[in-house]
This record gives sequence, structure tokens and C-alpha cells, in this order.
Amino acid sequence: MMGDSELKNVAVRNIDRAPLEIVDALAELGVATVHEAQGRTGLMNPYMRPIYPGARIAGTAVTALAHPGDNWMLHVAVELCRPGDIVVVALSAANTDGMFGELLATSYKARGVRGLVIDAGCRDVRELKELGFPVWSKAISAKGTVKATVGSVNIPVVCAGALVNPGDVIVADDDGVVVVPRKNAAAVLDAARQRVAKEEEKRQRLAAGELGLDIYGMREPLAKAGLVYVDRLEDLEK
Amino acid sequence: MMGDSELKNVAVRNIDRAPLEIVDALAELGVATVHEAQGRTGLMNPYMRPIYPGARIAGTAVTALAHPGDNWMLHVAVELCRPGDIVVVALSAANTDGMFGELLATSYKARGVRGLVIDAGCRDVRELKELGFPVWSKAISAKGTVKATVGSVNIPVVCAGALVNPGDVIVADDDGVVVVPRKNAAAVLDAARQRVAKEEEKRQRLAAGELGLDIYGMREPLAKAGLVYVDRLEDLEK
Amino acid sequence: MMGDSELKNVAVRNIDRAPLEIVDALAELGVATVHEAQGRTGLMNPYMRPIYPGARIAGTAVTALAHPGDNWMLHVAVELCRPGDIVVVALSAANTDGMFGELLATSYKARGVRGLVIDAGCRDVRELKELGFPVWSKAISAKGTVKATVGSVNIPVVCAGALVNPGDVIVADDDGVVVVPRKNAAAVLDAARQRVAKEEEKRQRLAAGELGLDIYGMREPLAKAGLVYVDRLEDLEK
Amino acid sequence: MMGDSELKNVAVRNIDRAPLEIVDALAELGVATVHEAQGRTGLMNPYMRPIYPGARIAGTAVTALAHPGDNWMLHVAVELCRPGDIVVVALSAANTDGMFGELLATSYKARGVRGLVIDAGCRDVRELKELGFPVWSKAISAKGTVKATVGSVNIPVVCAGALVNPGDVIVADDDGVVVVPRKNAAAVLDAARQRVAKEEEKRQRLAAGELGLDIYGMREPLAKAGLVYVDRLEDLEK
Amino acid sequence: MMGDSELKNVAVRNIDRAPLEIVDALAELGVATVHEAQGRTGLMNPYMRPIYPGARIAGTAVTALAHPGDNWMLHVAVELCRPGDIVVVALSAANTDGMFGELLATSYKARGVRGLVIDAGCRDVRELKELGFPVWSKAISAKGTVKATVGSVNIPVVCAGALVNPGDVIVADDDGVVVVPRKNAAAVLDAARQRVAKEEEKRQRLAAGELGLDIYGMREPLAKAGLVYVDRLEDLEK
Amino acid sequence: MMGDSELKNVAVRNIDRAPLEIVDALAELGVATVHEAQGRTGLMNPYMRPIYPGARIAGTAVTALAHPGDNWMLHVAVELCRPGDIVVVALSAANTDGMFGELLATSYKARGVRGLVIDAGCRDVRELKELGFPVWSKAISAKGTVKATVGSVNIPVVCAGALVNPGDVIVADDDGVVVVPRKNAAAVLDAARQRVAKEEEKRQRLAAGELGLDIYGMREPLAKAGLVYVDRLEDLEK
Repeated sequence: MMGDSELKNVAVRNIDRAPLEIVDALAELGVATVHEAQGRTGLMNPYMRPIYPGARIAGTAVTALAHPGDNWMLHVAVELCRPGDIVVVALSAANTDGMFGELLATSYKARGVRGLVIDAGCRDVRELKELGFPVWSKAISAKGTVKATVGSVNIPVVCAGALVNPGDVIVADDDGVVVVPRKNAAAVLDAARQRVAKEEEKRQRLAAGELGLDIYGMREPLAKAGLVYVDRLEDLEK
Repeated sequence: MMGDSELKNVAVRNIDRAPLEIVDALAELGVATVHEAQGRTGLMNPYMRPIYPGARIAGTAVTALAHPGDNWMLHVAVELCRPGDIVVVALSAANTDGMFGELLATSYKARGVRGLVIDAGCRDVRELKELGFPVWSKAISAKGTVKATVGSVNIPVVCAGALVNPGDVIVADDDGVVVVPRKNAAAVLDAARQRVAKEEEKRQRLAAGELGLDIYGMREPLAKAGLVYVDRLEDLEK
Repeated sequence: MMGDSELKNVAVRNIDRAPLEIVDALAELGVATVHEAQGRTGLMNPYMRPIYPGARIAGTAVTALAHPGDNWMLHVAVELCRPGDIVVVALSAANTDGMFGELLATSYKARGVRGLVIDAGCRDVRELKELGFPVWSKAISAKGTVKATVGSVNIPVVCAGALVNPGDVIVADDDGVVVVPRKNAAAVLDAARQRVAKEEEKRQRLAAGELGLDIYGMREPLAKAGLVYVDRLEDLEK
Repeated sequence: MMGDSELKNVAVRNIDRAPLEIVDALAELGVATVHEAQGRTGLMNPYMRPIYPGARIAGTAVTALAHPGDNWMLHVAVELCRPGDIVVVALSAANTDGMFGELLATSYKARGVRGLVIDAGCRDVRELKELGFPVWSKAISAKGTVKATVGSVNIPVVCAGALVNPGDVIVADDDGVVVVPRKNAAAVLDAARQRVAKEEEKRQRLAAGELGLDIYGMREPLAKAGLVYVDRLEDLEK
Repeated sequence: MMGDSELKNVAVRNIDRAPLEIVDALAELGVATVHEAQGRTGLMNPYMRPIYPGARIAGTAVTALAHPGDNWMLHVAVELCRPGDIVVVALSAANTDGMFGELLATSYKARGVRGLVIDAGCRDVRELKELGFPVWSKAISAKGTVKATVGSVNIPVVCAGALVNPGDVIVADDDGVVVVPRKNAAAVLDAARQRVAKEEEKRQRLAAGELGLDIYGMREPLAKAGLVYVDRLEDLEK
Repeated sequence: MMGDSELKNVAVRNIDRAPLEIVDALAELGVATVHEAQGRTGLMNPYMRPIYPGARIAGTAVTALAHPGDNWMLHVAVELCRPGDIVVVALSAANTDGMFGELLATSYKARGVRGLVIDAGCRDVRELKELGFPVWSKAISAKGTVKATVGSVNIPVVCAGALVNPGDVIVADDDGVVVVPRKNAAAVLDAARQRVAKEEEKRQRLAAGELGLDIYGMREPLAKAGLVYVDRLEDLEK
């Protein structure tokens, strides 16, 4: 794959995507449930925040690797998108520049892209909110970028600490961003639905005042693990 | 209190709480006023932020010491709560995991708990907002937690840089979180009310265009402290 | 200008301000556009955030240099303000204390000040939002401050990484804060308007599904810079 | 203790100190061992770092609460010190100013103070190293400070996340800073010595190539906790 | 690979490793050269720092995924190591606890492990330096850890932002940590050697006072890119 | 100076420099003393750290404004340097890439440059230490950079929060980096020498056990400021 000191910069046209009916079903379940359902894996760092609250989306990942202060690859990526995609931008080094704004969002929206996840900055926050184009980013910054150095599109990337392969499912909401590997998508959906079903029964019991200590049978394990109940803190010192 | 290399993990059932009528009166005054009224002490670090804007609450502290990535003690704490309490969770090491979500909030609410203050992460932000259960946390993260290591409940803890004893008053709003020691609660309420009364008069004078320089008599102290007025910066170099 | 080991603390009464008609026109264009129009310079660090979303203002800078935990100079500054000004507070060392709150805001508003930009903390967030007085700050903190050490007003300062001279134009919105040197204000407004005009045409083409790759003629430069298109990632390894 | 909106600023002359023979014995054991021996409590945040490597000291705490950018209380504290003390400085708000330098260190050393622990900055690093006066701080900064606002000396403080009472034992080395409550000092020393004795035997077995898995009997608990061994990762997917 | 809401925790016994003669040759070249030679990829975040300066090592990766505050997997990993390995520990969430110390290092060294790379904390810094066992970590912390929750060993992990597969080459020195995929190791070594050879000639010319501007032929590209030379800054404004 | 939306990128050949005899005298006094002597101004942020301890230098500033991940301007700058200069690199956005390494240092050294101050990263730390070329930077990172976007050389820049004009004096040591405006250099040297002379006398008195409280006459101001001495903390509550 290499052999000289040049980085091969590549844009891959065709990727296998998770089926949209699974993707859409995952969107309804939300990040926390999906993350639990796949064994607490795939979560991006919590510094990734939505630029405005309330959006909850899922889509198939088109990935980009970009360089600090350079948003050229975001223009390359959109041509390779299909409706239902989310563009995921990884950076070759930490950066907070505003790589994405209203003009690009207009283009992304016209192509059916559902949102952007970027390990850098975003700008035109007010306009993006009006446009209804959700972005999860590390920062908000008006800092403009150049188009001088090429990166890659649709290669495996590490974005905000999570490995993303092109075609993976991305779920994003107010709690953050989670990646579901394409091949696991159906199984994760299944597990997540079972989880939700079980939770509903627990919710009702908890709302009625029952305790998790009893519902989950925690009292014995707590005692075994060494938790001691006392009436008063002073009792401990006797 | 010790003598071997084991941490004594304890849950204390009975604590003395500040009276709720004082607590409720402090809630109306807000964090900034209460913090000033008790001599600018007791404030948690400003990284503690509400998960949604607009809430302003006060309550009596039930404290928990938990370990990174482990929310077991949050289940133990709720059983020891009474209506009017706020659960305050300190961590044994820095952590941003989402230790609290909608199911626990349902349980907390059913028991009359007014809110949560946690030096770690929170999840299910959208659901908590709909539920009207306010949380102040260091982070928002969907990252789930285990129930494997016990901590303690209702011991003195350091949460976000502030010492909290069980039964202390916690006041929390958009400005942050402040702790009022139980024994000082009445005196602080008194001082805070006097402060508010004085401020109202100043507010009207300031709104009418009078200057703080004159209202507070600052002109002489400023001159003594060495402040020099010039017409133009260039005058300084003459 | 000096010669002993004392800092000269000075308050300058008269400064030259950018004309308000230019200032007001810049406010409409927003931070991202103005920042681009002046060659991507003058932006404050992205840690400067509005205390509530939605405000977009511009004004002429009255500058203050204050010390950590001390808001004395904010009282000195307001007397030297005129309607249309924005007070810009730089700190002599990093600090997050809540140096500005509702009482000061009442005073500032009464004098026609349009907003505050402060490289430290702000408090009374809820009240400031109700009052409609926008603040851009590094932190939100209820931590009160003293009035013990003098600084300066209307000297050149570095605020959040940007050089601000008294009388410069400050534009602030959800994307951050940008400084336009007073002498460049008219030229920047001109450039910004031209930029907006050009963008409108591009926006329509992008909304219709045309690609930036084609509109900006990027295909040839991308190829020259070494970007290779492949159908499948596996093709690369052949 | 209060009743008006003034902070009582107090300097306490007499405090009970842990016995120096226990303190000196704890110094030899180091921070990590002492921290384990008292049940993994009392550790300051890991941002507290020595200004030069290699020092390992213990002493009795004389505490100070200071304000950002103001080192007045460090002058007050030294008068109340005895040989064997370590001064511990907490801040009323986050600050990195260089509150302590060579002149103060000369004074501290002359009075028998063994070192300084400060939740802010330190300067004159080269000179302090030559002087052999160790400091653990949050930052290194040449930023000078004023003497304008009083704090307190020898009250309980929260320093870098840990509660410190006057007279407590402070142990500090390259691993950080740990606080041992005065009353527990003898018991902790005992526990720490037992721990060291046990560790020596384990060290020899580990050095001979035996595994912790066997020495600590971890194989069965690992299996119970769900760890599965496979020969190849591919085996998992069958 | 999954289908219920449980994380499969696995320890893989057999992995393919890069040949040690290539690994050792890469160690001599250092991180910066190797990183350049493989096209500026594979570098861990710069927050990964050596616990003492001067070490420069390379080895084959045995990977571990651990949970915050839990070092159980570090005991599992060492059994699966061979001489020449470096253990690489990724965390399921951000953590700075001191997961590794002198006892474990004694065990690792006995087994021929060359060093540790951990996206968390390390303790016993003084002892590790004396032992000559190098560690690259995110933090130094005496904070002890539990052994309560299993993770995995020898699965692909993301450590400090870089993807590491078991058997990959790790190179670490004062500049940081870089990962070379196993299959690319020979080609990267080749490219790195060519790079070093070319650099030697440039070094001599630069040492003789020749300029990079001339050696690399930068003058024309700079002019094309718009760099303008003026004698005096004032000339620009004419 | 402008009028279109292009940033003018300029390299200025001739600048006025502070006289080297003053520069050299300032080097001996060190950062903390110089910073105090000019009224506690001009200090860069404390995140600027030397890549190895012990260096103390001063020089005349040749400034560069570079873009994240791009070190082209560092090649342009060296041609415009004279013996005695220090190159000061500001960034257009936050960045930690390793913009400077051993090859560039060889070139800088050959031209008589005394050191580098860069608000980004540095690499080849071991080699630079061997070479004896000191660097103060925000980070250490092996991350390589491109040469794609031009910036400027010898314009006023804001580096790590401090304004630097070409020709200003830079003093750097283990305590950080301070900027002395060229025109003030002689006066600051004078003030610094007076300061040192006064300190020597105080040092001797402090070393003899006299207290700062008495030497500086602090007892009365402390009492006026409200500091109360008590024998025991309990006395306060009576």
C-alpha cells in the first residue's frame, strides 16, 4: 500500500452501506440506548456536541480525513454521498477551525445528506439551525479555512476517538454520537429493541416508587462487595 | 476509623437536614446572591453546568462518593432520600461517563428528589428535560456505567472543588451550584435578603443612569490606588 | 513611558470611534462573513461564547484591562462609554470569575452600551437574558469579585488572543467575536457586501444540486495535488 | 459563624500537628503507597506536579486560602509555621499566577518549612531547584501577584480537590500529593508498612517471572466475570 | 459477532507480529522520521508523554481495552506477551488513574516487555525510572485502581486517537508515539532510511548557512502563493 | 491597507531591533524579574514551556504568522534573521503540530538565531537538546507539517496572548516567555537592575529569619483589610 514517503490520498466512490430501514429504526432509539445495546462500544468522545439542541438523526457514514484549517475534502465528500448519508470528518491533528458553514450545508442538504459529524469546528450556527441541518462538532468557530492540502474520502478514520468505516451507521442526538459497524447494525437494532421493551416495565415500577435496589436485586451483591449501613456516621467510629 | 488497607464503604441512613422552608427561600434568591451572602464561599467549579437552561432549585444534600464509570451508589442513595433532597455525587477520580439517565431520574422523581449534582457525566438529556428533572454535571455523555465497586453515601465529600456535608443546602441555577453549610442556612438567608433589598435601590439608580463610581464612592479609592485619567493616550507619553 | 517598576494605570477619556452607520451595517453581516472579508484575521479564540443564543450585535470598543477576580475597571469603563459602544475586557491572567452581572448590566444598558465581551466569567445569566443584554465570555460563574486593584481603560489590549484598540469595531454573534480595526471598517464593509452578493448566486446553484467541485473549478487542482479516485478501497492495494 | 455578608478572614495561631516521627516515616514510603494504605483516599488532582523531579517529602499542613493573583496570605502563613511544616495554598477561584518565588522560598526555608503545595502557579523554578526548596503546583508562571485582598490561614481548605485540615500530614513526590488526616496518621503508617512488607515478597516472585494472574488468584474471577480466551480473533466470529 | 446487549470480552492468545529485526531498526530512526516516512499517519495525540525523558524504543503491540479506574486487563495482557512486545492500553472512557506501577513493571520486565503505552495514568515514576522501564501516558497519578470489570486483550483498539492492531509496530520516544501497521513495517523502514539519507545531505548544507528557501526551491512557489516582500511595513500602506 | 477579501501576505525585510547589549543584559536577569520590572505586562500564557529545562536566553524578535499544520513561514523567517534574533511564531488558529525540528534548527543555528518561541508544537526534542537550540512551545508533537499556505513575516502578531512587534526583546527561561517593547528596553533594564539590587538586601534579611510581614510593613494593612488573628479556630465561633 505504500513504499515511498508520500501519503496516498484517495477518494473511494463505492462503499457498502447499512440498509436505511435499519438506520432509520436506530435513529428513533437514540444514542444512549444504541450504545448500551452494542455492549457500550463505539461512542465518540463527549466533547462532540450538537450545535443546537433537539436533533436526533441516524445515517450511513461517508468518511473524510482532512487537515487542520483545510476543508477541501468536505467538497469532495458530498459528490460521493447518497440520500441518507452523514458525513464524518476526522482530522490529521487537533483543530477547531470552522470548516463547515451555511453554503456547504445548502449543498449537503440538496444532495440528501442528513447531517455532519466533525472533529473540528463549525460556523454559521444560526443559519444552520434555521436551515435545519444538524452538526455535531468539537467547537464553534467563525475561523475560515483554506483549500490547499488533499486528504482522503471513504477510508477508515478515527473521529473523536471512535473508529468509523465508510457505510457504518452513525446515530447522533443531544447525548453525543455513536458508531454502529455496518455488519452489526441489524443485531444491534434487535438488541436495542429488546432493551427498550425491558426498560418500559422497569420505568413503570420505578415511577411507582419501587427501588432499583430491589428491582435489580442489588442488596446482596452490595453487602458482599463490602457496603455497610449505619444509622449515623458517628456509629462508624465506635 | 481505619487500620488496614481497606476503604470503609458506608451508607449512612440518618442525617440532619436544613429546614425546607429555609431551603425553599434560598432557591428564590439564586446562586449568585446566596454565594455573595455567605462571603463568596462554597461555590463549585464553573465547569458544573445545567444540562438544560432555566432551572433554579434548592434542596438538602444527600451525598455519594462513586468511582469512575460506576453508578452503583446512585441506586443506594435514592433509598436514603426524602422529598426536598438533592443528590450530590463526588467521584474518586476525574470521569465524564454518563452515570445518570432517564430510568434513574424516574426513580428519583418518584421519591421526591429535586435534582442531581454530579462531578461526572449525564445522559438522556432530551428525556430529562421532558421529565423536568434538572441535573448539573461536568459533561454530557451517553457512556454507560457498570455496578461493580462500592463507594459511600452520606459522608462528607468534595464535589467539583466544594466540600459538601450531608444535609447541607444546595442551590443550583444557570450560574452554577453553591453549597450552604446546614448550620449557616438561616443566617445566610437573612444576609441574602438584606443584600437583595439593598440591591433593589441601587438597581433603580443605575437604571436611571447614575454611575457605580458615584453610588459606591469609588472615585477617591481609585485615585489613591493610582488610576490616572488622561484625555488622550498620547498625553501619557509626554 | 516607564522607568520604575510600577505599572502606569490609566483611564483614557477620549478615543476615536468607527462611525456607527458602518458598525450597524457590519452587525447585519455577522461574524463569519466579516472575518472572511477582512482576510481571516481578528477573530477571538473560539472559547468565547455567548451566554445565550441568538444575539448578533456590533459596536465600538471601549477596552479595559482587569486583574483576575477584580471587576473594578468595569465600573470605570462605563463612564467613558457612549451609546453604540461594546465594552471589551482583557485579563492580566487567565480567570473565570463572574465579573459581570445584572446590576452592572443595568448600568451599562442605561448608558447605551450594546454588550460585553470579557475574557473571564459572567453571572446572572438568566437575568441578563431577560434584560436582553448580550455577553460573550469564557465562562459562566457565580464567583463574585473584589474591587482592590486598578487596571486601565481605553488602552490597546489582547482579549482572547485578539488585539483590540479602543474605537475598533466589535462584531459578535453565535459564531464568536471578531475585531475590525477602526481604519479598515469601511473597506471591510465593502468587501463583506461584495462577498455576500457573490455567495447568493452560489447558494442558489448549490441548493439546486450543483457541486462546489464544479462551481469553484476544484477538479483539476485536486488531481494536481494528488487526489486519486478509485471505485473500491481494495483497488488501491492491487 | 456569620450573619452579615462579609467573609470572616482569620489567621489561626495554634493548630494540632501530627507527630514528626510519623510524618518522617510516611515520607520514606511515598505517595502511592500511602494513598493505597489509607484506602485510596486523600489524593490531590493529578494536575499538581513537582516543579523539578526527584523530591520526596512529608510535613504537617499549614493551610492558606488565597485569592486569584494575590499572594498576601503566603506572607501571613510563614509566621505561623514551625520546622517540619508544609504550606498548602488553596485558591478561591482557578488561577495560574506565579504566587511563590525565590524570595518567599528563602523566608520559608529560614523558618524550617519543608515545601509548598499550591493550587496555582509558581515561578523562579531554576532558583528554587538550586535552593532545594520543592514545590508542587498547578502551573509554572512568571506572572507576579498583588497583595490587596485578605484570605485566611489555618482553616480547613479544599486544595486541588482534596480536603486539608491544618495539622494534617502532606506527602508529596513525583507521583503527586496525598493528604493524611492527622488522627489517622499512625494507623496509615502501620497499614503502609504492612503493605510494603507484603509487596516485597510479590516483587521477587514477579521478577522471577511468575504472573500476577497466579499470585493473586485472578484466573477464576476473570472467567466468572466473563473473560473468554480464544486462540485467534477469527475464532470469535464462528 | 453479537446479538445480545452484552459486550464480548475476549483475550486472544495468538497474534501475528512484525519481525523484530524491522522493529529494532525502526527504533533507531525515531518517531518523527517514522511518522514522516509512512505519510504522516499513525501518530497518537501529543498528550501522550514519556514519564521520564530520553527513552527511545520500538516493539510489537499487545493491545488491551480497559475501563476507567480498573487495571485488571494489564495483568491478563502480560501473560500473552513475548520478549520485544510493548503493551498498548486503550480506555473505554477518559481516565487519568495510575493504572501501572513498579510491581507490574517488574512483572512486565521479567517477561521481556519493552515498555507501556497507556491512554490513562501511571505511578511510581521514580521507581520506574530507576528500573529503566519506559512508559508513555496521558497523566502521572498515584490514584490506585480496582480489578472489577473485564475488558479485552489483543483486539483492535483506538489509543490516544490512533488505531492499533495487535502485532503492529509501536515506536516511542521524547516526541511521542507512532503506530506502524504490521504489513507496512518493511516498506516504512525502507522509506524512512531513504529519508534519513536525503536529510543528511541537507543537514550539511543548512549547517553551512544555505537556506531551505534555496535547497527546496521555495522562492517561486511562495511568490505564486502570494507572498510579497517589502523593505518596511510602512511600504505596504502606500 | 485592504479592500478586497484577500489577506495581504507580506515578508518585511528591515526592522528596527533593540540593541544587543541591552538584550544580553536582560537575559541575565530572567523572565520573572523583567516581567515585574515592566509593570507585570508582556507575559505569554503559561502553557508556553521550554522543551528542555535550564535554558535562559534573550534576543530580538523576528515574527511570523503561520497557519495550522503549515511551517512554510519558518523557512521564510530565517533568511530575514540576524545573529541575536529569536523567531516568534504566532498561529492563525490553535494548533499543536510539530512545526519545527532538527533540520530547521540546524539552519537557524547557522544563521545565529538564538532560539524559537512558537504557539504550536515542536519535534526532535532529543536532537534539539543535543544541538543546544532552545525552544518554547505549546506542545511537543512529532506531527509533520505541509508547506501550502503563506502567512507573513515581521508583522505585529499575538503569540500565546502577548502582542509582539518585530524587533521587540524576547526573554525566555524555565519560568516562561516575556516580551519587552523595543522602545522600553533600556528603561526596563534599568528598573530591573534596581529591583535586583533591592531584592538582594531583602533576601539576606529573609534568610536570617526576618519576616516579610515586618520587612514590607504588612501588619497594619492586613488589620485594616480585616484579617483577624485568633489562637484557635474554635475561638471564632464564640
